[in-house]
Amino acid sequence: MARERKSKQREGNEIEFSRIVAFSDGVFAIAITLLVLNLSLDKEVTSDHLASALWDQRENLLAYAISFAVIGRFWVVHHRFFSDVTGFDGRLIGLNLLYLGFIVLIPFSSEVLGDYGGQTPAVALYASNLAAVVLIGMYMAADARRAGLTSIDDATHRESKIRSMYIGGVFLISIPVAFVAPGITALLWLVLFFDPAARLAHRART
Amino acid sequence: MARERKSKQREGNEIEFSRIVAFSDGVFAIAITLLVLNLSLDKEVTSDHLASALWDQRENLLAYAISFAVIGRFWVVHHRFFSDVTGFDGRLIGLNLLYLGFIVLIPFSSEVLGDYGGQTPAVALYASNLAAVVLIGMYMAADARRAGLTSIDDATHRESKIRSMYIGGVFLISIPVAFVAPGITALLWLVLFFDPAARLAHRART
Amino acid sequence: MARERKSKQREGNEIEFSRIVAFSDGVFAIAITLLVLNLSLDKEVTSDHLASALWDQRENLLAYAISFAVIGRFWVVHHRFFSDVTGFDGRLIGLNLLYLGFIVLIPFSSEVLGDYGGQTPAVALYASNLAAVVLIGMYMAADARRAGLTSIDDATHRESKIRSMYIGGVFLISIPVAFVAPGITALLWLVLFFDPAARLAHRART
Amino acid sequence: MARERKSKQREGNEIEFSRIVAFSDGVFAIAITLLVLNLSLDKEVTSDHLASALWDQRENLLAYAISFAVIGRFWVVHHRFFSDVTGFDGRLIGLNLLYLGFIVLIPFSSEVLGDYGGQTPAVALYASNLAAVVLIGMYMAADARRAGLTSIDDATHRESKIRSMYIGGVFLISIPVAFVAPGITALLWLVLFFDPAARLAHRART
Repeated sequence: MARERKSKQREGNEIEFSRIVAFSDGVFAIAITLLVLNLSLDKEVTSDHLASALWDQRENLLAYAISFAVIGRFWVVHHRFFSDVTGFDGRLIGLNLLYLGFIVLIPFSSEVLGDYGGQTPAVALYASNLAAVVLIGMYMAADARRAGLTSIDDATHRESKIRSMYIGGVFLISIPVAFVAPGITALLWLVLFFDPAARLAHRART
Repeated sequence: MARERKSKQREGNEIEFSRIVAFSDGVFAIAITLLVLNLSLDKEVTSDHLASALWDQRENLLAYAISFAVIGRFWVVHHRFFSDVTGFDGRLIGLNLLYLGFIVLIPFSSEVLGDYGGQTPAVALYASNLAAVVLIGMYMAADARRAGLTSIDDATHRESKIRSMYIGGVFLISIPVAFVAPGITALLWLVLFFDPAARLAHRART
Repeated sequence: MARERKSKQREGNEIEFSRIVAFSDGVFAIAITLLVLNLSLDKEVTSDHLASALWDQRENLLAYAISFAVIGRFWVVHHRFFSDVTGFDGRLIGLNLLYLGFIVLIPFSSEVLGDYGGQTPAVALYASNLAAVVLIGMYMAADARRAGLTSIDDATHRESKIRSMYIGGVFLISIPVAFVAPGITALLWLVLFFDPAARLAHRART
Repeated sequence: MARERKSKQREGNEIEFSRIVAFSDGVFAIAITLLVLNLSLDKEVTSDHLASALWDQRENLLAYAISFAVIGRFWVVHHRFFSDVTGFDGRLIGLNLLYLGFIVLIPFSSEVLGDYGGQTPAVALYASNLAAVVLIGMYMAADARRAGLTSIDDATHRESKIRSMYIGGVFLISIPVAFVAPGITALLWLVLFFDPAARLAHRART
């Protein structure tokens, strides 16, 4: 498909380019909204047990909140990446579709995580899904850069690469951890809040 | 994230800005359309009981109508707010995502309200959800204004702030009311139609 | 809301205007796509009965095809109407939301029609839903015209009004017919293909 | 509808034209995202059986991956076709809707394929669905060209026609094959990766 890598410039192909972005935004918006379908009460719940049935949804609600933040965050990163894109070719479109394919899986992984929170397979599935998104995103960014399709500067590129490696690494490491201590793997993900990558990247910059 | 609050101007970043708006519109459109999934007949309903099974959907249909109007109304307000936005930063994007996170919850809260109309937990959940949307929206507007990201004039800002406080207040008050008299809490929401805030705001203006 | 009918011109407010259109398109696109959810096999169908289970979906498939065409057609009409709109106000936005509220109901009405094809309540529900869409659309067009928000010429307006009255009329008439002869009401809808309104309107024009 | 084929130019009707494209993109985005709903665990799966229940999803996951790639590919083709469209009329809009009607069916066909992978009806349904998309797309392209609505050059048109005939042909042939050897029909689809059409088309070009 990309044998000779014929790319089109963004300028002069604004409509085609904006369709790629609009399609991606649509997929993000639908995937993030489908998360709500993971919250639902059994139709047989009687009025007496409504309060406790809602209380039983707390793990699903937590999974909803986490996954909403996760997809939202990925959308922001995707958004930022494409704002620096200056051209596109079949390969970028293909990689973007692959990337979106794993974004769309998140509502499923999230449902499993919400229903079987402390279980090894649920945690490993969720971590694999997010790791795949991060790594494909990283590859897509590096590949677009190599092909001269982005106007991103060196420092910013290095910064987002370090960050991707950090986030992707945390999720990859948490997969084996999920087999040993599934109940606390989610705590490991909390290190993502500290973001040493930002500091590292910032230092590399100055 | 917003330590130094580097914002981008809307002008010159029109594509990035319009992606934020398009993503929000997508989420609103999907959330409002998912409401229809709360209407559905049991597959085992026989032809003889079709009319009564449809009649049993009247509470779900009412919840559908209310929530459609509510999400539609929030969309109009969101629409109006963003038409005055002149710049954006990571913080505004983050707050907007938080806001959308509660918009997307409405189909779930609405489903519970439709299925358990007169029950305390259902009414309290719905009121909490809408109060959260209103208050986050109010905070987002005030925060964007403080950061100089909107071109809204003083009078209009005060007017929409008063209105938000009024609407948010009615929903907040209705939460404890739901514990005392769940069956009539929805009637309390009818005061929202009178909108004394508009008159108050109007007087403050002139 | 529209006490004094302060409207905004489309020119100079292109972004706001295009958000209304984009939101409507999103709702149409989601509603038309949700129709596919009405097609689904029981999870307990064994391999031996797969062919017959698929065959049992023929009524659902027919309802899918009809409703896809119906929503698609409404989208075309909506599309054409908004291409003549030159300004907008709160009232137009409100009426448009009301219109969309009945568009979003179609997947539900369609599901009921597919499951209980020849039954009076199913046919009456479907006819009422479509009649509501047509009549609200007609009212919205007339109202926008009265407020000077469209640039549509007299002849075209009269033509689409006659057509709306014809289509809306057929659906309205089919509601009582559904109580007498539910099995053949759908045949009555076939008269919509002849479209005498077009000829009438055409004659009125020349 | 297209008796006299009054078409509008894309230039000067950019908003109307972009609505057609935006609506199509929306439908594609939703259809591709709904694929994830085909992945779901039975609510009664106990923690002990979570791993095996997820393992049982492997056929559904494969169907998800295939259909995501298929819809994504169709979107790319649609995208490329519309980037050459210079005008539109009611007939093109109608054919596009018909085309989208079969795109939206894919999540259903895919669900059946995932649940009953090696069965004749499942394979035949999936192949028919994709064949219909390809053939309608081919007809739409030829028809738009005949009406002077595209700026596509001869060589490119011939190339995409050959490719469509090849892909459509493979799916059509696989329908009878599904009745003889349903278990291996999917292998036949693998020939689509070789794409002799591209080479043929390329040779025709030079």
